[in-house]
Amino acid sequence: MKPVAFNNNVLRDGHQSLAATRMPTELMLPACPILDSMGFNALETWGGASIDAGLRFLGEFPFDRLDTLKKACPKTKHMMLFRGQNIVAYTHFPDDVVEAFVNCSARHGMDIFRIFDALNDTRNMECAIRAVNKAGKEAQGAICYTKSPVDTIERFVKMGCELAELGCGSIAIKDMAGLIPPHIVYDIVSGLKKNIKVPVVVHTHETAGMGAPSYYAAVEAGADVIDTSIAPFANGTGQPDTARMLAVLEDNPRKPDYDTKKLLQLREIFQDIYNKLGFYTDLKNEVIDTDALIYQVPGGMLSNFRVQLKEQKMEDKFDEVFAEVPYVREKLGWIPLVTPTSQIVGTQAMMNVKFGRWKMFTPQAMDIALGYYGRTPAPVDPEVKKLAQEKSGKEPITARPADLKGPGMEELRKALAAKGIKNDDEHCVIYAMFPQQLEDLYTKPREFYKLKSPKDKIPACPPPAEAAAKGPQKLKISIDGQERSVTVEKL
Amino acid sequence: MKPVAFNNNVLRDGHQSLAATRMPTELMLPACPILDSMGFNALETWGGASIDAGLRFLGEFPFDRLDTLKKACPKTKHMMLFRGQNIVAYTHFPDDVVEAFVNCSARHGMDIFRIFDALNDTRNMECAIRAVNKAGKEAQGAICYTKSPVDTIERFVKMGCELAELGCGSIAIKDMAGLIPPHIVYDIVSGLKKNIKVPVVVHTHETAGMGAPSYYAAVEAGADVIDTSIAPFANGTGQPDTARMLAVLEDNPRKPDYDTKKLLQLREIFQDIYNKLGFYTDLKNEVIDTDALIYQVPGGMLSNFRVQLKEQKMEDKFDEVFAEVPYVREKLGWIPLVTPTSQIVGTQAMMNVKFGRWKMFTPQAMDIALGYYGRTPAPVDPEVKKLAQEKSGKEPITARPADLKGPGMEELRKALAAKGIKNDDEHCVIYAMFPQQLEDLYTKPREFYKLKSPKDKIPACPPPAEAAAKGPQKLKISIDGQERSVTVEKL
Repeated sequence: MKPVAFNNNVLRDGHQSLAATRMPTELMLPACPILDSMGFNALETWGGASIDAGLRFLGEFPFDRLDTLKKACPKTKHMMLFRGQNIVAYTHFPDDVVEAFVNCSARHGMDIFRIFDALNDTRNMECAIRAVNKAGKEAQGAICYTKSPVDTIERFVKMGCELAELGCGSIAIKDMAGLIPPHIVYDIVSGLKKNIKVPVVVHTHETAGMGAPSYYAAVEAGADVIDTSIAPFANGTGQPDTARMLAVLEDNPRKPDYDTKKLLQLREIFQDIYNKLGFYTDLKNEVIDTDALIYQVPGGMLSNFRVQLKEQKMEDKFDEVFAEVPYVREKLGWIPLVTPTSQIVGTQAMMNVKFGRWKMFTPQAMDIALGYYGRTPAPVDPEVKKLAQEKSGKEPITARPADLKGPGMEELRKALAAKGIKNDDEHCVIYAMFPQQLEDLYTKPREFYKLKSPKDKIPACPPPAEAAAKGPQKLKISIDGQERSVTVEKL
Repeated sequence: MKPVAFNNNVLRDGHQSLAATRMPTELMLPACPILDSMGFNALETWGGASIDAGLRFLGEFPFDRLDTLKKACPKTKHMMLFRGQNIVAYTHFPDDVVEAFVNCSARHGMDIFRIFDALNDTRNMECAIRAVNKAGKEAQGAICYTKSPVDTIERFVKMGCELAELGCGSIAIKDMAGLIPPHIVYDIVSGLKKNIKVPVVVHTHETAGMGAPSYYAAVEAGADVIDTSIAPFANGTGQPDTARMLAVLEDNPRKPDYDTKKLLQLREIFQDIYNKLGFYTDLKNEVIDTDALIYQVPGGMLSNFRVQLKEQKMEDKFDEVFAEVPYVREKLGWIPLVTPTSQIVGTQAMMNVKFGRWKMFTPQAMDIALGYYGRTPAPVDPEVKKLAQEKSGKEPITARPADLKGPGMEELRKALAAKGIKNDDEHCVIYAMFPQQLEDLYTKPREFYKLKSPKDKIPACPPPAEAAAKGPQKLKISIDGQERSVTVEKL
């Protein structure tokens, strides 16, 4: 039996999950030589929210980070999370933009593209898979795990087979909410191992306290690779810690061999970074979220929910709104609860309870009902679809959403030229997703980011948000032995 | 396949692990009818540190708590943790005291006595097992899990067989440090299931993040019962949460059926208690302890270690002292690292590094070397034993330590009478273990405990310890370039 291999996700999902994606490239560098020497299957260094957050908050041009990390970790394969036709943003982009992004990333050294679609609609993944293969890199097809009557083991296995046929070099089970139970991941992995030849990778989060047991079961079922991170950017809302997974696999014939002394060094480096990012971290993220467990929804969804209910003065309706969630999911074709669908479903459930079912039909929910996000796992309820059509005045579509879009690169190139910003492919693809943020990068002074950067803005306790919330503070101050009553307010 | 059953440990180990054993009986009562209606295999309600802490800090006479909880939870079996010949204290007691304690507890309604010995010396458990059987109750023999070259799977299984032969009605694997890896618990449970007929119970802690995966493996191997708790007195340094374990067993043919709505109610009740005990809780206890994982020692031992090293001004010697731990363990016969042996080993390792090996031989370590704690898992090094004999002037023993003691009850009865305190068996056995504390109970005013009681001493945030540490602060401030000495105090 071959040992299971570990990916290490600390440089992307680790700080995305535990420090609001705020780790600047510069702080990552001391860890790079060690990370690169460990023999990990891959280092997840890019993609997901890290491109948006790096550009928006840290003022980093995304391809610069990739270049720097590739140079600092030249031996290990680099991996990125890729949202299919959404690339690393939130809407569908034309095929030529997706292709250009893939080509640029490949050119800058990206090795493995983990591609998923929030609706598990493989049509939204095809263009990216093709482009990655054409660039000679590895397309990893990801299956988003979600629980619903239509999401059976067979269906997930079938999707994996389909992705393998589409040319994926590996298949990932992506459990973004950390809700996959061990027995179910065991069955999916077993099913995939029986039916496909490419490696099977499992990705989960410890949010609900099921990460490690599910990895254990996945390894027993023959998973080839699992995603781990480095504490304190691990466990809780992040991936299980590497040292912890080694301990969990103690005495297991599939236990891999990673240097624990180096892991200790890495832990010290990341603890130091964690302390520097103090402002963006929260010990609560490291504690098992019992609510997520009990309500069986992604952790983030519940807290959003509570905030929204409070804004709407509907706190007393929590149970009612919560009971409406599966109804909305069912009517909208059992869409998974992942960003952005979790927010769309949550908001619609709230509107249904407040105003009556579908009286307030949000534009996003209508778009889902009409096919503008792609093919839902089950058919949308015909009545609901009809209502969406009437209310929105839009026609339902069955085609791949991106098919409605013409090529986009030429226009992007012109727009950048008009603004006097460099208009190579790298800038075009970033501009497509984050136009304002890219413009800011070239027009705002560095102070604009310095203020946003945790490096320069890590406050002493309490963090400014809290201090601001508290407002001016009254203090008793003794100056040179003379007592004064003083009001202090942070400027 | 029979479903696995759950014990619920929230009323004993839950708050012992996560709130310094400070939950008063009164606060437990609202949860009792629900806990009692769930169909748990047993409720752990007594024993371990809860008897000492309840008496010492809350001013509760231990048998009163048992009476109250038995009355509040009449349907479910009650379970207690019992330290063999140490009863619920830290030294060896005469057999008649052990027997009297068992008889009193049985009379007050205790059903299952989980009996262990810190050295896994079954001779230290025999008297208690016999007494429990004689009282017509269930003796559960516990195997302390520890890692050492002599502690093999076979040895643990053999100990389980021996305990079953001694008359135990069930066998528990007690992983007090939360360090048992899934594959090892799988093998021990499998071995026990093959060789003994009585139920096999597994007890662990989530401290190092291995609790849930190890339970999962134990269930796969056929464990009959596992210990769970209720969040927030669960996970972290405590047992995995009940709702979480149900989620982990989702789709597993051995998943038991416990009412999740009632679990939600329990969670709300215990969250409320947790908030009231705020002063004694620490979010850090709920976060996975990566140090415990990396150093493979009980979580509590490391923090004690650091405090002691600091006191001795030996912080720079951490690695050296730490490397000395396995040496000391080996020479002392590979004793497990459990209270009190973890402290004894840690202190001796520190002394060895500071003064040279065995130059300062602590009395406790000498007693272990000479057999006064019982039979060590492996023989004590002859040179070390000889040295202990010379330095202490004491003879080594091979007999069961309690055999050196004459009967104790008569003397206890007289001593209590002389003090004018009730001298029934209940008072005698408590007086044997906690003489000063029992005396305090009858002589100190209630304010003595009110001051200690979390109920009356729960401060607003921040807790007093922290506030005191902050105190008035002296600062050097430069105002308009002029330096001033300033004292600041929060009002």
